[in-house]
Amino acid sequence: MITLAVDAMGGDAGLAVTIPGCVAFVQRQPNAHLILVGDETAIHQALKNADAPSGRISVRHAAQVVEMDEAPQLALKNKKDSSMRVAINLVKEGEAQAAVSAGNTGALMATARFVLKTIPGIERPAIAKFLPAADGSVTLILDLGANVDCTPQQLTQFAIIGSELFQALHSRTPRVGLLNIGSEDIKGSDTVKQTFALLKNSKLNFIGNVEGNDIFTGKVDVVVADGFVGNITLKTIEGAVKFIGSTIKQEFQANLLTKLGALAALPALKRFKNRLDPRKFNGAIFLGLRGVVVKSHGGTDETGFAFALEEAYHEAKADSLAKIEQGVAEQLAALPSADSDNAAA
Amino acid sequence: MITLAVDAMGGDAGLAVTIPGCVAFVQRQPNAHLILVGDETAIHQALKNADAPSGRISVRHAAQVVEMDEAPQLALKNKKDSSMRVAINLVKEGEAQAAVSAGNTGALMATARFVLKTIPGIERPAIAKFLPAADGSVTLILDLGANVDCTPQQLTQFAIIGSELFQALHSRTPRVGLLNIGSEDIKGSDTVKQTFALLKNSKLNFIGNVEGNDIFTGKVDVVVADGFVGNITLKTIEGAVKFIGSTIKQEFQANLLTKLGALAALPALKRFKNRLDPRKFNGAIFLGLRGVVVKSHGGTDETGFAFALEEAYHEAKADSLAKIEQGVAEQLAALPSADSDNAAA
Repeated sequence: MITLAVDAMGGDAGLAVTIPGCVAFVQRQPNAHLILVGDETAIHQALKNADAPSGRISVRHAAQVVEMDEAPQLALKNKKDSSMRVAINLVKEGEAQAAVSAGNTGALMATARFVLKTIPGIERPAIAKFLPAADGSVTLILDLGANVDCTPQQLTQFAIIGSELFQALHSRTPRVGLLNIGSEDIKGSDTVKQTFALLKNSKLNFIGNVEGNDIFTGKVDVVVADGFVGNITLKTIEGAVKFIGSTIKQEFQANLLTKLGALAALPALKRFKNRLDPRKFNGAIFLGLRGVVVKSHGGTDETGFAFALEEAYHEAKADSLAKIEQGVAEQLAALPSADSDNAAA
Repeated sequence: MITLAVDAMGGDAGLAVTIPGCVAFVQRQPNAHLILVGDETAIHQALKNADAPSGRISVRHAAQVVEMDEAPQLALKNKKDSSMRVAINLVKEGEAQAAVSAGNTGALMATARFVLKTIPGIERPAIAKFLPAADGSVTLILDLGANVDCTPQQLTQFAIIGSELFQALHSRTPRVGLLNIGSEDIKGSDTVKQTFALLKNSKLNFIGNVEGNDIFTGKVDVVVADGFVGNITLKTIEGAVKFIGSTIKQEFQANLLTKLGALAALPALKRFKNRLDPRKFNGAIFLGLRGVVVKSHGGTDETGFAFALEEAYHEAKADSLAKIEQGVAEQLAALPSADSDNAAA
């Protein structure tokens, strides 16, 4: 049995999305147990309204809620009994194997980092996400915004935690690429060039620089960038997918002929929509912490929230954290920079 | 009559693409005159094979060709009679109003900068491109890779030249946005924050930070980033468009039902493909130089090359360079940093 702690109050819509998402999820995963954290009375009422199955869903009261726009440091200081904080405490105390929240990203990261701490040797946690790529494969990309400025050492740590997560979930050594503006070794900013040198000397399966278009080709499994570049890349992808989707829609609605075509094309269009449905890729992973924390998009619906729960469930089931901790220790020990203070400088 | 100087030898396929592209273009634009620069004999032969109309296409001999992978500085030093260099010389000498090349990007930029120089007050040229956005609008994004590391002053200069180009081509004051990881004023790296302050105090129509997804919404006209972020963003978009296109194709070929649907959907799919055809957005603009230079993708086909010619033609026709030079002078004079040495530091 895998137990997930759920911040039931988080997200733009709170219980209206999290409860049906949780119900859908436990019906799909017979070996999952959920602890819903938040306003006890409201949660029980919502569960009743959603006709939730008994067993496998329990409730833990938390009196506070972190607001979506609350300053992370204030939430950390003043909201010690928030649904978010209590859910993460459950992971810390071993009652749950993972926590999931659709709440305030900054507050969730600050809280998770404060409560769980980072894996030894990892200076900062990163945000990672699996994206769809060619032939049904997936590409893990990190950091997606937790760290705007990064040192070459930190970027190398991101490469390591990303590689170890991919390995834990997919049982093969992933190809790691450094997001850059050209495939030649000498490209990029000084930080990126130094990172290149560190990665080349690591025990990772480093395939060199990759460009933005490589994210989708399936030729790289783990794409490493700082949080500034990674976040802009992710948002650009989200924007492109949305724009292209609405363009297709417009062109199918252009005239009677195209509208008739749309009817006939419905099966293919549904398959297409289903395959690239952003809700299926909703779970953002807080990586590098001593605990599994998954962030759902704040504005997602119940389907999207259920997919965030799936992401946490699979990580917990694969025992990814123990594997990552062990892998990180081995990778860091093998780095040349472990022998000298600053090999890359 | 607008005269364009064309590097006929540049690009992965050279004359096989440039000549038919030029022929298609002059047939479409009755007021365009082309000077094709390169191996005289080969060009005349290719024109003959392509059944090119006489008049409006002339040929200028150049004995050398810059290789696609040649080091820019070596090309600059050793290839003074290259088709690329001679085409840019024609702009410098006023024989042509713009130059177009599908050749080596780095060499073209180095040569253009050396021969034409930058507009007074602009430290470095940038690469800019129009991308399709919602409701048939376009968004200009720069820099796309000419400058990996930029100062806040240089990013502000990019905002100015981008804004002035947009204004010259679209006859309205564009909304300028700074590509960042959040829309709040305080987001981003130190450089980005300082750029924000400079732009806020400028006379530009600065709408603040924009995110990756805003590129496609039509809510911003000019998106400013350094060349590292801009290039990764552009490549990511190209990759996403290609990936989504091939996913649609796959789903329409999934089974007999979807294949029949594809037949019926053909009119809409064609409209869609035509609207987002990357060849229509092929012309990358070298901006900030004292001359109009447009770079075609090296691997494009004749249709794409003809669109790069169109881009150069419209810039020349709009007298964009004179307008940009005047606009830059006015914008720079209005910047607070013109009064003190380093207002943003």
